Amino acid sequence: MAPQAGGSSLKPDSSLEDLTIDNLTPHVIRMSTRVDDARVKYLTTKLIQHLHDFVRDVQLQTDEWEVAWQFLTKVGQTCTPERQEFVLLSDVLGISALVDAINSKQTLEATESSVLGPFFNDAAHLFENGQSITSNEVAGEPMFIRGTILDTAGKPIEKALVDIWETDGNGFYDMQDSEYSGPDCRGKFYSDHNGKFHLKAVKPVDYPIPNDGPVGTILSIFDRDCRRPAHVHYMITHPSYEKLVTALYLRESEFINKDPVFGAKLGLVVDLIWSEDAALAEAYQVPLFERDISNEKRQGFWLLDRDFVLVPKQSKEGRKTHD
Amino acid sequence: MAPQAGGSSLKPDSSLEDLTIDNLTPHVIRMSTRVDDARVKYLTTKLIQHLHDFVRDVQLQTDEWEVAWQFLTKVGQTCTPERQEFVLLSDVLGISALVDAINSKQTLEATESSVLGPFFNDAAHLFENGQSITSNEVAGEPMFIRGTILDTAGKPIEKALVDIWETDGNGFYDMQDSEYSGPDCRGKFYSDHNGKFHLKAVKPVDYPIPNDGPVGTILSIFDRDCRRPAHVHYMITHPSYEKLVTALYLRESEFINKDPVFGAKLGLVVDLIWSEDAALAEAYQVPLFERDISNEKRQGFWLLDRDFVLVPKQSKEGRKTHD
Repeated sequence: MAPQAGGSSLKPDSSLEDLTIDNLTPHVIRMSTRVDDARVKYLTTKLIQHLHDFVRDVQLQTDEWEVAWQFLTKVGQTCTPERQEFVLLSDVLGISALVDAINSKQTLEATESSVLGPFFNDAAHLFENGQSITSNEVAGEPMFIRGTILDTAGKPIEKALVDIWETDGNGFYDMQDSEYSGPDCRGKFYSDHNGKFHLKAVKPVDYPIPNDGPVGTILSIFDRDCRRPAHVHYMITHPSYEKLVTALYLRESEFINKDPVFGAKLGLVVDLIWSEDAALAEAYQVPLFERDISNEKRQGFWLLDRDFVLVPKQSKEGRKTHD
Repeated sequence: MAPQAGGSSLKPDSSLEDLTIDNLTPHVIRMSTRVDDARVKYLTTKLIQHLHDFVRDVQLQTDEWEVAWQFLTKVGQTCTPERQEFVLLSDVLGISALVDAINSKQTLEATESSVLGPFFNDAAHLFENGQSITSNEVAGEPMFIRGTILDTAGKPIEKALVDIWETDGNGFYDMQDSEYSGPDCRGKFYSDHNGKFHLKAVKPVDYPIPNDGPVGTILSIFDRDCRRPAHVHYMITHPSYEKLVTALYLRESEFINKDPVFGAKLGLVVDLIWSEDAALAEAYQVPLFERDISNEKRQGFWLLDRDFVLVPKQSKEGRKTHD
């Protein structure tokens, strides 16, 4: 008996598309957006469109695609509870800085924001103004930090919570110490009735982001330095104002122009002041240190003096759901 | 003594850009493309551009960015030597199918390619034509597979190596068996001097892709089915022709229109033939099985009969290095 069409007697299904380079993208989008939430639908549509456009634009080769998923696997497997290699990848690709810029509610008059980074710790202690955020054993040149919290009209803001964190003089955050025993080089302060805060700290120094993983490999391929310019982090909150996450970067750093995570921007670069103000040092027991200036030995300390401008809390905008 | 500018006496560095939503992308690209290889430079430039465009287009919110890196971390940590969740993610986003389409050197006359999938195993044994690729214990309805390997002029190709793999009748590949003891439901055959090959197998069935990980969560959010339509994989190689990686999909599958990995395309959909050819069954000891057709019990077997057309080996094109 001759073969005959049998069990598979269904008619050819005219709804089956012939998937091609050109029509695959709308098909995948159609299949992947059966969801009610308009924002999720929009994000998914745009993500698939951009990923496919990239692959099509560059004519991605099979061996390059293999390198890509092998790399992403390594990034995921480098993550531990103490290390977030995907955030680091986002950082060095400038994505974190872009997300920060998009999400900051700043106006022209307000202080610019900067990336949060991986070393924020809400467990920092609350101090009185004038106290030191560093323990006695911490390495580093003495630095006095002060500033005023203002609104966009220049009016002082009282009881803003100023959370500050920085490296020690060796370039390490407290949590990078294998013998970590509690918060150090970090602390919270309330601004006084003049909007002012002040504290003792040490001068922060340049330090490398973790470069022994897959992200470090990328930096090395592109001959990018892994050292961040020295900076002090600030997170400033107040019930009536938008939260400000920012940092001040020391202009003297040789890495000021090549921050690997793109946090350093012009508006956040500061000059440290060399102070020999004996009255100030006396009032807050700021330890002096000796330094050569024009072949003369001088006693003094570093002064970081910078004001911050907050914007009033804004009503939540709806999230974008279409172009 | 009044404070004075000291150690940080460097002039403001005019080369430090004020990084904004608008100029961050070219800055990151400039920093990330200091490499000689023109292809690497091009891939990196386009990748950063597309990623940033996506973030800017959708105005990505901080909490959404956090969900993204947490998700990617989970994908990486779901990978094991036996499971590649990033390839699966690439599959369900249609990226693997797109890369396949871009890289296949097919012409209009040639057989279309399809995704390789994760179950290829080069350790499959070489058989003589007519032998069975399934062990005796394998579940499934008997199926005879045959075909001819042709060039684009319709001339048979001798000694093409045809590597075939499929699920058993329960929807599992050999390597998914926890008591795996060697290749099963897979094998290699050489086409004879008429370009023909033939073998015994079982009818493959629909089966789910791994859906207990983060990629499964995505499919469930979008109400996408995780079952692939039943299919038989073919990898066909010959020194003078381009390698063809493809698969034939059974039209009768209810998932033929919604393959979660976008491998099933019109040109690769086949109708199985119900055969009662006693001479063929006798010649190759194809076991018959009983089936109701129009209320009559019939003895027969499935026949998968399909030819493949290869294209001559092409000289390597240079990879794209600019738009």
